[in-house]
Amino acid sequence: MKKKTALAAASFAAVFSTVAIAQDAAPAPATDTSVFVFNTVLFLMSGMVVMFMAAGFCMLEAGLVRAKNAATICLKNIALFSVAGLMVYLIGYQLIYGVAEGGFIAPLDFFWKGDDSDPTGVGYSASSDWYFQMVFVATAASIVSGTLAERIKLFPFLIFVALLTGIIYPIQASWVWGAGWLDARFDDFAGSTLVHSTGGWAALAGAIVLGAREGKYVGGKVTPFPGSSLPLATLGTFILWLGWFGFNGGSQLALGTIEDAASVADIFVNTNMAACGGVVTALILTQVLYKKVDLTIVLNGAIGGLVSITAEPLQPEIWQAILIGGVGGVIVTLAVPLLDKLKIDDVVGAIPAHLFCGIWGTLIVPLSNSGVTFIGQLTGVVAIGVFVFVVSLAIWYLLKFTMGVRASADDERAGLDKAELGLEAYPEFTSG
Amino acid sequence: MKKKTALAAASFAAVFSTVAIAQDAAPAPATDTSVFVFNTVLFLMSGMVVMFMAAGFCMLEAGLVRAKNAATICLKNIALFSVAGLMVYLIGYQLIYGVAEGGFIAPLDFFWKGDDSDPTGVGYSASSDWYFQMVFVATAASIVSGTLAERIKLFPFLIFVALLTGIIYPIQASWVWGAGWLDARFDDFAGSTLVHSTGGWAALAGAIVLGAREGKYVGGKVTPFPGSSLPLATLGTFILWLGWFGFNGGSQLALGTIEDAASVADIFVNTNMAACGGVVTALILTQVLYKKVDLTIVLNGAIGGLVSITAEPLQPEIWQAILIGGVGGVIVTLAVPLLDKLKIDDVVGAIPAHLFCGIWGTLIVPLSNSGVTFIGQLTGVVAIGVFVFVVSLAIWYLLKFTMGVRASADDERAGLDKAELGLEAYPEFTSG
Amino acid sequence: MKKKTALAAASFAAVFSTVAIAQDAAPAPATDTSVFVFNTVLFLMSGMVVMFMAAGFCMLEAGLVRAKNAATICLKNIALFSVAGLMVYLIGYQLIYGVAEGGFIAPLDFFWKGDDSDPTGVGYSASSDWYFQMVFVATAASIVSGTLAERIKLFPFLIFVALLTGIIYPIQASWVWGAGWLDARFDDFAGSTLVHSTGGWAALAGAIVLGAREGKYVGGKVTPFPGSSLPLATLGTFILWLGWFGFNGGSQLALGTIEDAASVADIFVNTNMAACGGVVTALILTQVLYKKVDLTIVLNGAIGGLVSITAEPLQPEIWQAILIGGVGGVIVTLAVPLLDKLKIDDVVGAIPAHLFCGIWGTLIVPLSNSGVTFIGQLTGVVAIGVFVFVVSLAIWYLLKFTMGVRASADDERAGLDKAELGLEAYPEFTSG
Repeated sequence: MKKKTALAAASFAAVFSTVAIAQDAAPAPATDTSVFVFNTVLFLMSGMVVMFMAAGFCMLEAGLVRAKNAATICLKNIALFSVAGLMVYLIGYQLIYGVAEGGFIAPLDFFWKGDDSDPTGVGYSASSDWYFQMVFVATAASIVSGTLAERIKLFPFLIFVALLTGIIYPIQASWVWGAGWLDARFDDFAGSTLVHSTGGWAALAGAIVLGAREGKYVGGKVTPFPGSSLPLATLGTFILWLGWFGFNGGSQLALGTIEDAASVADIFVNTNMAACGGVVTALILTQVLYKKVDLTIVLNGAIGGLVSITAEPLQPEIWQAILIGGVGGVIVTLAVPLLDKLKIDDVVGAIPAHLFCGIWGTLIVPLSNSGVTFIGQLTGVVAIGVFVFVVSLAIWYLLKFTMGVRASADDERAGLDKAELGLEAYPEFTSG
Repeated sequence: MKKKTALAAASFAAVFSTVAIAQDAAPAPATDTSVFVFNTVLFLMSGMVVMFMAAGFCMLEAGLVRAKNAATICLKNIALFSVAGLMVYLIGYQLIYGVAEGGFIAPLDFFWKGDDSDPTGVGYSASSDWYFQMVFVATAASIVSGTLAERIKLFPFLIFVALLTGIIYPIQASWVWGAGWLDARFDDFAGSTLVHSTGGWAALAGAIVLGAREGKYVGGKVTPFPGSSLPLATLGTFILWLGWFGFNGGSQLALGTIEDAASVADIFVNTNMAACGGVVTALILTQVLYKKVDLTIVLNGAIGGLVSITAEPLQPEIWQAILIGGVGGVIVTLAVPLLDKLKIDDVVGAIPAHLFCGIWGTLIVPLSNSGVTFIGQLTGVVAIGVFVFVVSLAIWYLLKFTMGVRASADDERAGLDKAELGLEAYPEFTSG
Repeated sequence: MKKKTALAAASFAAVFSTVAIAQDAAPAPATDTSVFVFNTVLFLMSGMVVMFMAAGFCMLEAGLVRAKNAATICLKNIALFSVAGLMVYLIGYQLIYGVAEGGFIAPLDFFWKGDDSDPTGVGYSASSDWYFQMVFVATAASIVSGTLAERIKLFPFLIFVALLTGIIYPIQASWVWGAGWLDARFDDFAGSTLVHSTGGWAALAGAIVLGAREGKYVGGKVTPFPGSSLPLATLGTFILWLGWFGFNGGSQLALGTIEDAASVADIFVNTNMAACGGVVTALILTQVLYKKVDLTIVLNGAIGGLVSITAEPLQPEIWQAILIGGVGGVIVTLAVPLLDKLKIDDVVGAIPAHLFCGIWGTLIVPLSNSGVTFIGQLTGVVAIGVFVFVVSLAIWYLLKFTMGVRASADDERAGLDKAELGLEAYPEFTSG
């Protein structure tokens, strides 16, 4: 009965007969309470799909590792999400938001205490914001697990995750989102740099310290280790795509005005179109380069497109969003063999998708945002990059020379599932 | 502390002490802004789960093809969703809504330009509506990929998807949802015909042009090709079921009044119950017919039930919804062997579930909607069916006689994964 | 451009310039209509992710059974969700809410009739509440399917599900959420006892009547039957984790005031942290006990943590939530071998996670809720436990001595997929 055009301009007055909107008058605002609820709902709903990205990363990584490491990567993913939650509660959130304006680091403050005593003062539930920020932090850790799969030991990995989510991520995030020293000159709407490059730098440092998987680079040749389940990897990518609507849309941080709601919707469209761009360029480019379409690169093309638009998903025109994401797909396609040339063994391609596209997305923001400068963006990229990479490298080396980070050659050959868990991910499917 | 009945009528006044509702007075409406936000949120939240249906179709199809074609069907699914997004942006959306009232086709208008200049004029964000319509269009393309799996070449498939999502779907949708010539006499709430039958007709045309998979119909016998992963197929069905709440619920198009919110909720219930009906009839009927329950038919029973209720999920009584969906389950169960008799090779059973149940759901609308006539519904079913089928057939033949649509016999035997992608979906699980 | 701190207290006035909030005045409430829409949205959005928990249970169970039973467990899961929907419609919902205040059982009343005639009287859509309650009932049935997998016949299982969801669950739920006799002395916010223990008791009764799987306990030794796909089991756990935000958050039952929205957000945080606690304790404890981390126990640790916080996810401090969930992880870890000692064969570990942690979560409520007594909680745990267990046991025995509940030894050995469905879940992966 109802047509899809029922709400078109002409019939609006009829449909909403109780709501008189004079075109020349400002529309009546939502009440204080409604604004509070809308904002809180934005954080919670967005946070839910961002939380689900943990499952997306898990499936992507489980699908791209070999079967003998699939259970271990699952364990790492659910454990890192748990450790991230605990660390953000213990110290991380306070480090992000406790920094002085223009400052470098917040004073130590343990155990988040919430604050719903005067919730109307900020226009949203404190817990809803905490939840939203916490799932962001976990995302950065998920990036690391993929790169380092198939050879890193469980407990040093989890210790690194604790430090990344409790200290490294929060400190650099405080510089921008906490109104620290970088905030005035640098722009990163939803975290191309603050989340994705941060995860990517930490992963790169780990990959250097760990070294490549046995047999990956032998005699100048690159041996491909095909993933055990491409359908699971594809599922993971779709889940990430879904989660990105919350990741970028929720970063508008407010939903209670017409302008905010319209902005969230614009962000949804640009986010989607950047992913489409990344898929299509990766698809065409792999066909041109290799005469075959490469599914895993196409999946990473989607992710690369999404990362690329994350620094500024609101301001670009749609065609710009497609272009920004499309370049992301190109970057992913070209960077995968480049990393292999450098003998940096990134099991799932997370460094191209999250680090390289994160840099690209951050640097291109001036294209659509007149108030943002290339120099400012570069400053942020370099400052955060140096900080995260150097500190991560130091921690990885410290772990290496104390407890060791790498599984033994025997364990690596047998697969971490048998070595660390004493079981197999698919006991009936493989003849291992 | 809080009981589940805390909000029961008697205690309502106490709970909402700040909201005085006199039973004999009309409740205070939401403000203009709140209406705008509610409507926009409906589009975005519904759109997200409909977007996730792309993952559902992907898992369903990946689970129902043989392992040697599983990666290719994954690629097709993520690629078609991307192509659909780009085509709806390029031309599709304008074709749907640019049509003159009562018209047949909109003038050409490239690149959607959005319109948030005066968002209060329509009561929702333009981008949110675009997003919601875009994911609908992608759904129709997802239907096609399943039917034609295991033998169609990638690039002709994507070209067809571009034409389907950019031109074919938009033109027929404009006839109804764009207020075109069919609108006055035909009713299709959320797209039993406009989305599901459209996808089904396009798939049928493709299946005829392509022909059956090698070895499927030999010597008058039908050889079953069991799906490679029924758990993934089941997961896909659950995801589709979830997405359908957004598909049908979001098609209410408005959430800012008590009536609209209550309607969305009624739609959720009917949508769910139709799926339940489809599952139970397919389960019982396959047990009776074959002495075994057939899981793949039960999964399609759920989908058939959902498609059946999509033409009118609001008006039916719950028992009617169960019945409408239950007949959908029967249709699916009986149509699968019927297609085999006609040697139409539909790999995942999409034609029974989407086309046949789409027709059924559309024709039964007069049962619950007094203003709708059987003749009107039949007019729409036939007009859209003829248009989509004939145009699709023409395109498929054109593709066949230019670039070719069918993989070579060798490639089909080896599996499209090796032929088109040069890899395997499950390299360690199969002895290929 | 927008910083993550844009909404911090200091700048709130500037951002929401149209919303004047005087710190010393009560904020303006939402209008009647907005409250109605918010509440309805809470039920629908929460209900959607709880519905998706059906997919989570399905994947968890499909991943933890052997490949030869994976398709059957998928069928059981989609069928039980459908049967639950039909039974809640037929009689269940009326049994829950038709009970007299302080009563034991509601009068029989078939076919739910909805009630949107005067929706403003209760502040939410009747259908949205029905939807939310229905998906809760289905959850209880999902618990049973996992425990009894690999040996129970399909049709007796579905008959039990019909009785559980139509009669057993509704009667005990009416005692508390329907304001029956237990309501005044017993507290269970979102269903640690009413949903999870109920499912667990029904599963335990079934496991006793069915007996263990062939070969599980032979000669005093426990033979592990490793699950066929740990990645799917992990995916299922993540989906359950996601769904739990709706499960617990939606049980606030209202979203239209600042207090309600803030409470929902608090519940999200506590729910998440309890799961984190369960994961970490299970991880550490299995490492300590077995020198290897046990992924399946860690997954159940997450679920055990979630079940533990379900009886009261709002009142605890965050550190209490971590502790409550952490103890849940310990319970799961210790109870799995305990059940094996008792030769109770629980295929997926549902009894520890849902029954034992459900009891724990219910009994610990007095820790954070001053109005709740240990004796009252114990009364509820025992009363509901006795009722559900005894009635379930009677039904299982009745089924056993009429149609039989257990697959034949031959069928069990061949796998239920071949026996009941005549197919294989993974025909190309296993050499069955």
